[in-house]
Amino acid sequence: MRNRGLVIWLTGLSGAGKTTLALALAEALLAEGHRIEMLDGDEVRENLSRGLGFSKEDRDTNVRRIGFVARLLARNGVIVLASAISPYRQSRDDVRRSIEDDGVRFLEVFVRCPIDVLVERDVKGLYRKALAGEIKNFTGISDPYEEPFAPDCEVDSSTESVDQSAARILSHLLEAGATSSSVTQPQAVAADTCEAAL
Amino acid sequence: MRNRGLVIWLTGLSGAGKTTLALALAEALLAEGHRIEMLDGDEVRENLSRGLGFSKEDRDTNVRRIGFVARLLARNGVIVLASAISPYRQSRDDVRRSIEDDGVRFLEVFVRCPIDVLVERDVKGLYRKALAGEIKNFTGISDPYEEPFAPDCEVDSSTESVDQSAARILSHLLEAGATSSSVTQPQAVAADTCEAAL
Repeated sequence: MRNRGLVIWLTGLSGAGKTTLALALAEALLAEGHRIEMLDGDEVRENLSRGLGFSKEDRDTNVRRIGFVARLLARNGVIVLASAISPYRQSRDDVRRSIEDDGVRFLEVFVRCPIDVLVERDVKGLYRKALAGEIKNFTGISDPYEEPFAPDCEVDSSTESVDQSAARILSHLLEAGATSSSVTQPQAVAADTCEAAL
Repeated sequence: MRNRGLVIWLTGLSGAGKTTLALALAEALLAEGHRIEMLDGDEVRENLSRGLGFSKEDRDTNVRRIGFVARLLARNGVIVLASAISPYRQSRDDVRRSIEDDGVRFLEVFVRCPIDVLVERDVKGLYRKALAGEIKNFTGISDPYEEPFAPDCEVDSSTESVDQSAARILSHLLEAGATSSSVTQPQAVAADTCEAAL
């Protein structure tokens, strides 16, 4: 099983906890001996999409580039943790299709968090600036976010801990046969929100 | 050994035979059971660099992006065959450094072919257009190509066959311990032009 790649795609608003969750998943999966790569939206922008902005077209282009790299890695046995706002449904679905067409599993995880909680948290101070109009095209404030209709898994960082969310996703992967059997056992939190889509 | 990645970077003028050589290498290495990905300059442009042109800056950006993806793949055990004109020494050297800094072997292969032979061949009709001024910034005609000072391996498609070039590179890899031992045995052609750099 360790030679089977997989793409875990974390989508959600800025500050919802995508990267934090990806790190927790990476730690657990590394402990299992899996090959892991984390593709972070911001980091990929720096390396593959410098010069692109935040128009719909540019955001979609960035998402497709992350998808392209994720596909190459996953088809070579790597578990890819891609965390990117990826606000548009169509481009997420296109990435899923390109990856599944290559025989690789794709798990869309919607990292939900209510906007008022994000504005309240505002770890990076970005929401304050966006609300003041100092940042344009800010997802959730002045730019759209299209929630997944049917994510493979949904977590909510305002109601559960990172460990709980991670455990639920790992449990889902385990049940789907996508990872080996000794991954941390899941906690009994809202397990029904993960679809058996794999 | 099959879990060790490697980047084989083929640089040279358009039409010199980089992709053809990469295909021959891929075939031999696949037969050995290695994981292989081919990153072709034109294909990567389509997927990661659409919108970039052929200025020095844009060419360098494209080369760095190929290098970024090659590094991610190779550090996960893939042998990456990157074929790109990659005309500037500095960006090739930067890519090498980033990959070697990640603990991955990097083999620069200079695919040489005299310009008059390329103009004579002109398989895609590009040299005719470039000489007529219909294509601007064409490497070797109206744009520079900086030959590697000390490539790990050098082949010449005007004096040896694809099989001879491939065999020489494979022999070099084998001697360097970068691949397993049953790869096609090398032919005794100009073996001294491959540096024992690995």
